[in-house]
Amino acid sequence: MFRTSLLVRFGDLDAAGIAFYPRLVNFLHDAFEDFFARHVGRPFAEVLREGLGFPTVKLEVEFVSPVRYGDTLDMVVTVEKVGHASVDLAYAATVDGRTVFRARNTAVAVELPAFRPVPVPEWLREKFESARGPAPGSPPEAAS
Amino acid sequence: MFRTSLLVRFGDLDAAGIAFYPRLVNFLHDAFEDFFARHVGRPFAEVLREGLGFPTVKLEVEFVSPVRYGDTLDMVVTVEKVGHASVDLAYAATVDGRTVFRARNTAVAVELPAFRPVPVPEWLREKFESARGPAPGSPPEAAS
Amino acid sequence: MFRTSLLVRFGDLDAAGIAFYPRLVNFLHDAFEDFFARHVGRPFAEVLREGLGFPTVKLEVEFVSPVRYGDTLDMVVTVEKVGHASVDLAYAATVDGRTVFRARNTAVAVELPAFRPVPVPEWLREKFESARGPAPGSPPEAAS
Amino acid sequence: MFRTSLLVRFGDLDAAGIAFYPRLVNFLHDAFEDFFARHVGRPFAEVLREGLGFPTVKLEVEFVSPVRYGDTLDMVVTVEKVGHASVDLAYAATVDGRTVFRARNTAVAVELPAFRPVPVPEWLREKFESARGPAPGSPPEAAS
Repeated sequence: MFRTSLLVRFGDLDAAGIAFYPRLVNFLHDAFEDFFARHVGRPFAEVLREGLGFPTVKLEVEFVSPVRYGDTLDMVVTVEKVGHASVDLAYAATVDGRTVFRARNTAVAVELPAFRPVPVPEWLREKFESARGPAPGSPPEAAS
Repeated sequence: MFRTSLLVRFGDLDAAGIAFYPRLVNFLHDAFEDFFARHVGRPFAEVLREGLGFPTVKLEVEFVSPVRYGDTLDMVVTVEKVGHASVDLAYAATVDGRTVFRARNTAVAVELPAFRPVPVPEWLREKFESARGPAPGSPPEAAS
Repeated sequence: MFRTSLLVRFGDLDAAGIAFYPRLVNFLHDAFEDFFARHVGRPFAEVLREGLGFPTVKLEVEFVSPVRYGDTLDMVVTVEKVGHASVDLAYAATVDGRTVFRARNTAVAVELPAFRPVPVPEWLREKFESARGPAPGSPPEAAS
Repeated sequence: MFRTSLLVRFGDLDAAGIAFYPRLVNFLHDAFEDFFARHVGRPFAEVLREGLGFPTVKLEVEFVSPVRYGDTLDMVVTVEKVGHASVDLAYAATVDGRTVFRARNTAVAVELPAFRPVPVPEWLREKFESARGPAPGSPPEAAS
């Protein structure tokens, strides 16, 4: 389990004054980047420069409650499954303890720039494994 | 069923040179807007000004193949279910006949600015109903 | 002089219901891309793939009037000056004949991925030259 | 003078692997928001909710050096002039002490949702005045 905080900015809002949902999806990537920087211990920028990418192939999001300007998203990231060349992640975002969205995505390890799937490297697999656990607030059947 | 074309711009790309997935989610909204403008016959801007919004509460996306700069997305939008105060939509995006992503979302009809769910108005329900159909390329169990 | 039309989408808006100014800056790039596709006759994506980029080094924008959701921006692009390794462009955006913003930027021709300035290639210089002219609505001293 | 730090994310990059310039413009707004939160002492979200907005009417940016993924922008915000109903701000962004861009914008105080210019309120004028000063690295003639 990994936890990070993300601030909702003016540029994340839509005309109805709440965070626009594609922008909330962008926060999943921000959390994934923080996961690399602080849990894995290597900035994603560096990983990318070395030719390893993690394009998302599957995404599910449940938007539970509107996210407002100035909210600080408390994002919990857990690894649900580490496959041969992929990883399943779960995200739970709360604001002041109230769940605002939950998500799950599958990212595939690829060699860049060819986008050819490659096995998750050993050093990273360990880090993914140590972040395993059910997403907070997820139903029992969602736990790995 | 409704069909629209969307151009992938430089601003949609990530550092790996493919469309960034939150930007592809943004294309779902673009398609939804075109659906209002051309299938429903009322610009979404106008609908919004009259106090009716459609926040997305659930989203599933399967990214099948990388989307490149300059690609024209051929987006097919179908309505899978019209609920009392919500609508389930399916999206299939192809580039030159090849599927690049498929998505499904649930949008809830709300009164703005209160975000209180309201029944889908009759004039809109008819338009939603006339766009019903299975998403092209979706598995049989996904059809409504 | 080159002219293109760009639609203001929901995703371009801010919480005050008008287009957010960084998003209007993004429209300058969209217009630049259309300029390549239709005036130059080569998609910018292709130019980029061949290792020629045009990072903006200088930008000036005057936001004259709010841009609203659903507005179609009528964008006029003119070349003000073609330098050895750079180009000065002017942009004027109107909605229903009313000016909404005016901009000017300088883009430098660079070799990618090194970002080393290179002379504007001859085939492109000609195309830039044939789009020369004062920006519509610009003050006399701004005309080239 | 006010100083804030902003992290360059994956979503800020373009296909050439550097921050896309409309995204850098977005960082100006982020800095403006931090200025409100920490220098003015009132979150911009709150100011906005009370019906006071600050649309940008004029913008100048000089992009000095490419901004890379993972860079932390050290942004200095200074107020150059406080007008009756407007404020001129200067921004200087450095990464590890090296200037990457400089900008200046004029924002107009408006009453929302009418977008009618209003005098800068006294409580805010004082805060603007206390952040006055020349932008670091700006030429002498640019100082107010």
